[in-house]
Amino acid sequence: MAMKVAFLGLGSMGTPMATNLTAAGMSLTVWNRTPKPGAVKGAKTAATPAEASRDAEVAITMLADDAAVEQVVFGENGIIAGLPREALHVNMSTISVALARRLVEAHRGAGHRFVNAPVFGRPDAAAARQLWIVPGGSADDLTRARPIFEALGQGTFPMPDPPRAALAKLLGNFLILATIESFGEALVVAERAEIDPGQLLQMLTGTLFGSPVVKRYGQILVETGFEPAGFRLPLGLKDAKLALEAADELRAPLPVADLARERLLTALARGREDWDWSGLASVIRESAGLPPRR
Amino acid sequence: MAMKVAFLGLGSMGTPMATNLTAAGMSLTVWNRTPKPGAVKGAKTAATPAEASRDAEVAITMLADDAAVEQVVFGENGIIAGLPREALHVNMSTISVALARRLVEAHRGAGHRFVNAPVFGRPDAAAARQLWIVPGGSADDLTRARPIFEALGQGTFPMPDPPRAALAKLLGNFLILATIESFGEALVVAERAEIDPGQLLQMLTGTLFGSPVVKRYGQILVETGFEPAGFRLPLGLKDAKLALEAADELRAPLPVADLARERLLTALARGREDWDWSGLASVIRESAGLPPRR
Amino acid sequence: MAMKVAFLGLGSMGTPMATNLTAAGMSLTVWNRTPKPGAVKGAKTAATPAEASRDAEVAITMLADDAAVEQVVFGENGIIAGLPREALHVNMSTISVALARRLVEAHRGAGHRFVNAPVFGRPDAAAARQLWIVPGGSADDLTRARPIFEALGQGTFPMPDPPRAALAKLLGNFLILATIESFGEALVVAERAEIDPGQLLQMLTGTLFGSPVVKRYGQILVETGFEPAGFRLPLGLKDAKLALEAADELRAPLPVADLARERLLTALARGREDWDWSGLASVIRESAGLPPRR
Amino acid sequence: MAMKVAFLGLGSMGTPMATNLTAAGMSLTVWNRTPKPGAVKGAKTAATPAEASRDAEVAITMLADDAAVEQVVFGENGIIAGLPREALHVNMSTISVALARRLVEAHRGAGHRFVNAPVFGRPDAAAARQLWIVPGGSADDLTRARPIFEALGQGTFPMPDPPRAALAKLLGNFLILATIESFGEALVVAERAEIDPGQLLQMLTGTLFGSPVVKRYGQILVETGFEPAGFRLPLGLKDAKLALEAADELRAPLPVADLARERLLTALARGREDWDWSGLASVIRESAGLPPRR
Repeated sequence: MAMKVAFLGLGSMGTPMATNLTAAGMSLTVWNRTPKPGAVKGAKTAATPAEASRDAEVAITMLADDAAVEQVVFGENGIIAGLPREALHVNMSTISVALARRLVEAHRGAGHRFVNAPVFGRPDAAAARQLWIVPGGSADDLTRARPIFEALGQGTFPMPDPPRAALAKLLGNFLILATIESFGEALVVAERAEIDPGQLLQMLTGTLFGSPVVKRYGQILVETGFEPAGFRLPLGLKDAKLALEAADELRAPLPVADLARERLLTALARGREDWDWSGLASVIRESAGLPPRR
Repeated sequence: MAMKVAFLGLGSMGTPMATNLTAAGMSLTVWNRTPKPGAVKGAKTAATPAEASRDAEVAITMLADDAAVEQVVFGENGIIAGLPREALHVNMSTISVALARRLVEAHRGAGHRFVNAPVFGRPDAAAARQLWIVPGGSADDLTRARPIFEALGQGTFPMPDPPRAALAKLLGNFLILATIESFGEALVVAERAEIDPGQLLQMLTGTLFGSPVVKRYGQILVETGFEPAGFRLPLGLKDAKLALEAADELRAPLPVADLARERLLTALARGREDWDWSGLASVIRESAGLPPRR
Repeated sequence: MAMKVAFLGLGSMGTPMATNLTAAGMSLTVWNRTPKPGAVKGAKTAATPAEASRDAEVAITMLADDAAVEQVVFGENGIIAGLPREALHVNMSTISVALARRLVEAHRGAGHRFVNAPVFGRPDAAAARQLWIVPGGSADDLTRARPIFEALGQGTFPMPDPPRAALAKLLGNFLILATIESFGEALVVAERAEIDPGQLLQMLTGTLFGSPVVKRYGQILVETGFEPAGFRLPLGLKDAKLALEAADELRAPLPVADLARERLLTALARGREDWDWSGLASVIRESAGLPPRR
Repeated sequence: MAMKVAFLGLGSMGTPMATNLTAAGMSLTVWNRTPKPGAVKGAKTAATPAEASRDAEVAITMLADDAAVEQVVFGENGIIAGLPREALHVNMSTISVALARRLVEAHRGAGHRFVNAPVFGRPDAAAARQLWIVPGGSADDLTRARPIFEALGQGTFPMPDPPRAALAKLLGNFLILATIESFGEALVVAERAEIDPGQLLQMLTGTLFGSPVVKRYGQILVETGFEPAGFRLPLGLKDAKLALEAADELRAPLPVADLARERLLTALARGREDWDWSGLASVIRESAGLPPRR
């Protein structure tokens, strides 16, 4: 029988993910803060998260930040109120370690199961079922969630529990920022030296640096293609701050995250809210006397 | 007929490289500051760089730093004095942009050809003919040097001229340092959170970060395997400073290089001269209250 | 007639401040989370902040952090509940800009007057009535508070409103941290060069750098006299983070605060919770291979 | 009898200093790279440093950087060649520690005496005989130089030897940069919060931060009065780099100097060669979305 799924959050990531779940034969009821009728073909629409969750075996959240997840879970018509006992909440949003801990507690109290399963990948990867998933939860719960993960991604990297899954995801995002920062610096030096940045990038990816994230973001940096955003700059700032907050609690310095955070703040001070987070490189460019884009 | 090659510098990189050239059928005369008789089977030995270069078509330098290259090229019995007119000097050492410029001038004055061709790869890559080579020079000279590059590496990434080849190599080393720094920070946060660092590394290389440099150095960081050195820490500091110097001249800030430079200084202040340059991560560990090694 | 004052918080700062107020002829009722009978000669003791405030014209809070102020103001037996209408709350604790805003709203709603008046100075300055006070509030309210300020400090520097007074104080603390960081760095270089740090400090304070904060903290740095604490290291970290948070909201980078924050984190990771915040310099010392103290 | 002095370098500092020496009754012969006839009333003019030094008891150098000092001392018609045996060279330029060491050796070889005596103070302080002097040399030589120091400054802070005097001066300049950086950051936060920067500065100098350097540079920062330059930005960059170089050699990190260096580079990349070094604060302003000047 088709798995009954409530899907909460139809942004640039959630919409293709929900679409893939219906394509995999699941029975979806979707909800979005701003109603988006017809966004997910074959899915029912609910007026509140609680209504969407009423008969669900699994509720999935794919939302922008902690505040949105808190609202959808703990709010008046939220999941805590709506989801049946023993049903499973799979949060796929990037959230703070502190919120992951709070979700564990709250769902335990409500008799729910909970898996925190943030993802790596931009909207095109979501559409192509190429996400990487980092799930944290009990072995049983991970087994229950497996069909969902198979319908959405190309692989999973389990972590011991929900808070550590949140942390692993934040560290991954930190490393993407670190890549943007360091390659951004190197490409600016090259441009000032009149080395063709595309040629330098080819050398770098052709030798020791050829990872997907370098290829992807390297190309954006070379083209200074900071719009349209795949992941908006204020969300990047949010994640930099969540990583710093988690590291603070662990008494572990993260100076490269400080650097990225400062760049992102400057980009926002210059009115670049709608740029991609890789747009932090525009600030590196300006610090070397170059225009924000080529 | 066998190409006549003078090979100057038989350190941990030069020795396997020279050995590969003799294996490729070239006729080698080798020289090292400290004589190493028998280090390269089948090669003749000379008492000075000039003597080694006397009949050479090509002189190759593979030395530790600017000072060593300056001595071997401009010193009393150096290449400038010894190499025949029209012969080719291929420098494969990592040198400053300023020295690359000076070599262009000096060889032009002496009627020599000159290619600056620094390499990426550690001693095991040198032994396995797996170096990546970044040559800068005229098209003709690159053609002349091709058999050498084929005998030593797995590919070339040409740059427009010798100083830009020096800069591209320095930027590559800067990015290795940036990788060590940023993954070092992330792995320390993981360790403090009692996430298994090996498991986190597996997640990172399995998703978006799977480049050779991340796989290689990530493993060293996880094992804190900072000895024996593949590339010694003081040489890493030297390269960080050369990158900063080149960037200064271009009026381009490189704050991640500052960070790495400070870490390397601290590692040296703590007596770690003989550690691998990835040992800068020991300082990150200590800044989070962890022992320098696991 | 004697001004009736509720004084909440009898820590290392609050105790001498309350004592000075009774010495100035005011009628004090004091409260502390952990009762401290007899700490302030001539003062009555109350069991809760509300009880202390019941008949007060002015309630003064001098507490460690936002959480403590929130508890004392908004808690079950807090000031909001206990203070008569039209009475004045003078907060002298260092708090976040966000909490200052919230206090403005809450007191307006409760019909109270509110002045935010954080202070510069360590316990000995509090005892000697040498505090500097940075009050923000309406002109009328500042006039009402004047006798208090005169009994406690050597001068006031008014700011336009309570949140800006909070910010000005945080910027002051940021600058103390910046002073500790930069003089800490300079003195470490001197020590490594075998220049007597005391002699260098004398040169610095004798030429262009002779401010009270340099004289005070410079001496601590020279002696590495990080214990006992005048202001504990975790409180310094708290203030660094509040400054960064306020600056974030304003889209203004504060990289020197990042640097100090990282140092403080490292000091805590090394178990130095009970050291003075100037103990961040111990981490600078260690980064140059020196012991944490001379 | 009047002391015979050769004075080499008639820039914005040297001219008022030489004028003060003639006013003190000394017999001056002056030289400048670009002849400036009549710049110092009552002084003779020489065509070369050697000619100026020929009959001198003391030769004073007040020049822009290491290169200029090297030329004037070691050049064809330099002091080494021209100064009589047993005469004294007093260098008052800010130079590298390495050059101070080299001067010690060279003068010893030539039978000269040598004192390295860099100064704190801008051109107006030079004119007003308000310089602070940091002399390093033997006790005898300091005694010989005393009349000069008395004619030029308001006090001396002796260091054990010439290289340490150079280092102490560089650390002082580093601390001025650190002051500009940290107060620049604080004032930008204030401006973004619509706190009047002048009012904040008044609070800061009125409480704990009232040193001459804070008063002086604070005012420049408040007015964003970066032109005309009292000390040009490229010279500030030079000194930041000399401090970093000296600290590197001592294995002591100076991250605040890195930060200042990056700012200065950016200011130069934006074409601000002729601004005062305090103009690094323009870059802080821009990083928060403010115009370079108010």
